[in-house]
Amino acid sequence: MELLKSTILEDGYILGDDILKVDSFLNHQIDVKLFNEIGKEFKKLFSDVKVDKILTIEASGIGLACVTAQYFDNVPVVFAKKTESLNLDKDLYYSEVYSFTKRKSYKIMVSKKYIKEGDNILIIDDFLANGKAVLGLKDIIDQAKAKLVGAGIVIEKGFQDGGDLVRSQGINLHSLAIIDSMESGKIKFR
Amino acid sequence: MELLKSTILEDGYILGDDILKVDSFLNHQIDVKLFNEIGKEFKKLFSDVKVDKILTIEASGIGLACVTAQYFDNVPVVFAKKTESLNLDKDLYYSEVYSFTKRKSYKIMVSKKYIKEGDNILIIDDFLANGKAVLGLKDIIDQAKAKLVGAGIVIEKGFQDGGDLVRSQGINLHSLAIIDSMESGKIKFR
Repeated sequence: MELLKSTILEDGYILGDDILKVDSFLNHQIDVKLFNEIGKEFKKLFSDVKVDKILTIEASGIGLACVTAQYFDNVPVVFAKKTESLNLDKDLYYSEVYSFTKRKSYKIMVSKKYIKEGDNILIIDDFLANGKAVLGLKDIIDQAKAKLVGAGIVIEKGFQDGGDLVRSQGINLHSLAIIDSMESGKIKFR
Repeated sequence: MELLKSTILEDGYILGDDILKVDSFLNHQIDVKLFNEIGKEFKKLFSDVKVDKILTIEASGIGLACVTAQYFDNVPVVFAKKTESLNLDKDLYYSEVYSFTKRKSYKIMVSKKYIKEGDNILIIDDFLANGKAVLGLKDIIDQAKAKLVGAGIVIEKGFQDGGDLVRSQGINLHSLAIIDSMESGKIKFR
């Protein structure tokens, strides 16, 4: 997706060897117009699959998922939670995810009410690095006996093994920008 | 907002005396069509103020803020973060918020890059109970010497003191549904 790639090149920057900061438009400040273009692109890429719900993880995935859902006939969005709350049901699906940027594992939770057997679920998320977030969401979808119809990712770090891992499980993965290297502060797209 | 009130009555339910669960459409599963109606309503209520940015708090505020921004000429959304991350700047505004539903205080952070002196900021959030989230965001807006032009809330718990507290500070607050009591499992709107 050219608009996304040019935005990454213009506004993103690299921290150390492996952290790409895109917080000016993707995961702290949000460019809502760009999110709409991303949503349209996901609709194009997943035009041939039936989508009943979009599933994502808090926090950065939520805005993407909501804007994207508008291009999928306003299907409901469900976001996996990371922390317990008095507001949250007791009847939950759990999985475990290792975060690359936070350097620790955390639990994700989805109420059993919001993913049902047979639901066609599209995963939407901002980053794919080690692939653990997508696999954690897939684990929850499997527990619910729902169907994972695809995973739409904004930025895939192609130099980490998440993309291969996710594709090797037969998941219908589309990443809008795949970065093959960020050596010496220079971003190379696949 | 009638559609919101009827959705609360139909799909919300009460836990104990003071917890309203609306996770089927607002803060776990998201009704994107309803969010669009909410966004339109906020635009009506804040049609007379200049809005440069929308500020919210992760996680439930993000979807609301992104969909609402579409009715404010796609102004950027900034969401305050609750946890440190390798992705996050070191140069941050901080404030402290007590969460009613989590029964504890937490820190909120916004990168100094994304709120600037003179910016006209609209706060959008899902709930107002004790008012501490709005006041924490206002604190950050004040630190940045930006201007708080209004606060749009989906559900205000009118039986807690947050609404009075926020209004007494001269904040231009609009809540789309104000609940005056939830006694004996019955929701009464103001």
